[in-house]
Amino acid sequence: NASAIIIDGKAVAKQIREEVASEVARLKDAFGIIPGLAVILVGSRKDSQTYVRNKKKSCEDVGITSYEVNLPEYCTEEEVLKHISVFNNDPSVHGILVQLPLPRHMNEQNILNSVSIEKDVDGFNPLNIGCLALQGREPLFVPCTPKGCMDLLHRHNIEIKGKRAAVIGRSNIVGMPAALLLQRENATVTVVHSRTSNPEEIVRQADIVISACGIANLVRGSWLKPGAVVIDVGINPVEDPESPRGYRLVGDVCYEEACKIASAITPVPGGVGPMTIAMLLSNTLTSAKRIHNIK
Amino acid sequence: NASAIIIDGKAVAKQIREEVASEVARLKDAFGIIPGLAVILVGSRKDSQTYVRNKKKSCEDVGITSYEVNLPEYCTEEEVLKHISVFNNDPSVHGILVQLPLPRHMNEQNILNSVSIEKDVDGFNPLNIGCLALQGREPLFVPCTPKGCMDLLHRHNIEIKGKRAAVIGRSNIVGMPAALLLQRENATVTVVHSRTSNPEEIVRQADIVISACGIANLVRGSWLKPGAVVIDVGINPVEDPESPRGYRLVGDVCYEEACKIASAITPVPGGVGPMTIAMLLSNTLTSAKRIHNIK
Ligand SMILES: NC(=O)C1=CN([C@@H]2O[C@H](COP(=O)(O)OP(=O)(O)OC[C@H]3O[C@@H](n4cnc5c(N)ncnc54)[C@H](OP(=O)(O)O)[C@@H]3O)[C@@H](O)[C@H]2O)C=CC1
Ligand SMILES: NC(=O)C1=CN([C@@H]2O[C@H](COP(=O)(O)OP(=O)(O)OC[C@H]3O[C@@H](n4cnc5c(N)ncnc54)[C@H](OP(=O)(O)O)[C@@H]3O)[C@@H](O)[C@H]2O)C=CC1
Repeated sequence: NASAIIIDGKAVAKQIREEVASEVARLKDAFGIIPGLAVILVGSRKDSQTYVRNKKKSCEDVGITSYEVNLPEYCTEEEVLKHISVFNNDPSVHGILVQLPLPRHMNEQNILNSVSIEKDVDGFNPLNIGCLALQGREPLFVPCTPKGCMDLLHRHNIEIKGKRAAVIGRSNIVGMPAALLLQRENATVTVVHSRTSNPEEIVRQADIVISACGIANLVRGSWLKPGAVVIDVGINPVEDPESPRGYRLVGDVCYEEACKIASAITPVPGGVGPMTIAMLLSNTLTSAKRIHNIK
Repeated sequence: NASAIIIDGKAVAKQIREEVASEVARLKDAFGIIPGLAVILVGSRKDSQTYVRNKKKSCEDVGITSYEVNLPEYCTEEEVLKHISVFNNDPSVHGILVQLPLPRHMNEQNILNSVSIEKDVDGFNPLNIGCLALQGREPLFVPCTPKGCMDLLHRHNIEIKGKRAAVIGRSNIVGMPAALLLQRENATVTVVHSRTSNPEEIVRQADIVISACGIANLVRGSWLKPGAVVIDVGINPVEDPESPRGYRLVGDVCYEEACKIASAITPVPGGVGPMTIAMLLSNTLTSAKRIHNIK
């Protein structure tokens, strides 16, 4: 008797990509402007290559021009910085993305700090995060994955103000900004992390749960308040002899149990995953409009 | 049968001021360097004047040079910015503080943003707040009042890691940075604010409560978990015909009730209050040492 509404991130992401595509077309027709996204990939990690390929493909689909620089694993930090500087000064580039993780011999902070704040479509610059935390300030960009989580809540008319929320995980790219975003919309937020002694108790009080801890099936049905809304960011491989690849992907939340208790839930895959790239496209579009001062 | 340890902020602040004074003396003797703090006051609000006078007096007591600019209420934003720029470039100034609130016709954000990040002893620059929120980053300065709260916890050997904490209030200057600081030390933090529907329930689960909401006696004894540690930031005037001024100052927490339930509590006055200025002196000293590259 699963009763939860399934939040179809794939469908929402498709809709967003269509919205972006039509706005990109308008920019081109009315102003001759084509939004551009530059991606810098260092090394040849298989997963990073896949992510970059998907991002480029998605840009193409909506009419955003993508630029790629692929540097060898053993290039220097200076070379990466040089390419960022070129993109910072290139007026046809409106967003710059450095695919993480970087090789260990590079200083990630130096590199991320060097991306112009106006083109930081990932929203990882400390100045952006500071503006996210501060009342009365507006960040130029909101990090894509947590922005995608909020968008799913908004498009499903889920009330946030006055609600209790639990965010599981506090990473710089998902958990921490997700908590700040929920708090900005007047939820009362508790951040659960690996040192939390009684996570079930906290999660059980939450009307909204965003999980981003990277532990397969950590959150059981019994952890949830009946009627809670569950946004599962986790993408975790678990062994599965029946799958051709020998594994399949599951979330942080035990879906079979949760969908009987929650009022709405994102599946994995097909939930938050597709939203991340959709938000990247949307941030790139926003950036192009802001740089060219188009309403 | 009050049993709580009274956290004597006045005594701790005195100790910190003595520590700062002896380090300031060392800097002068060994390097000929005298830390300097510049304060900019716009207008003639009585309370602001008192705060600025106290800050200057405290600087004097520990051997920090203070500089003051007092501008009329109806000066322009440009004049304020000009003075900040002069202090930014003055090598004898290591900390710059703009007394808030500013007159309504000025843009507070522009003004605060113009303070050099290396001299932002208040820690209000978004870049500093971003570094406070991000794992793996270190802010140059931590805002004084929340830093004072943490220092009281540390000097009383109160364990933070793994504990539940409730922060009541989420202002840019107290509540929000206090929550980030507690989380950095691995507490599990819930931020309570004016839209929180069940504050008592949340506070009752907390091992550590930091309250900064500005409502006299909001937190009753019944809101507290037995043995909780209470840091009361609130400074709220309540009518008191027996006082010569007609009012007295109380905290956000009902002290008489709380001291029977809590294991430790800060009084108001004499708790967090004196810590704020002590932290300002400490931040100014740190800044002078950093600028002159002294260990
Ligand atoms: N859908 C998408 O597009 C994306 C999905 N992801 C997925 O989201 C998940 C999280 O990613 P990311 O944020 O980068 O991960 P990180 O590994 O950077 O962070 C994991 C967080 O979870 C916390 N945590 C670890 N164990 C527990 C536990 N037992 N209980 C509670 N909290 C715990 C950690 O706490 P502590 O800080 O104490 O170590 C940490 O804050 C992963 O599965 C990842 O694949 C990530 C990005 C995008
Ligand atoms: N000891 C010291 O040196 C200092 C003391 N203070 C004192 O600390 C207190 C707070 O100051 P400040 O942070 O500047 O105040 P602000 O007015 O800026 O912020 C008050 C915060 O409390 C929240 N709040 C208001 N009502 C309630 C309620 N009923 N329940 C829960 N939360 C509530 C507000 O929520 P929302 O965001 O939803 O509006 C807001 O986040 C004041 O008494 C002030 O005098 C301040 C600075 C220094």
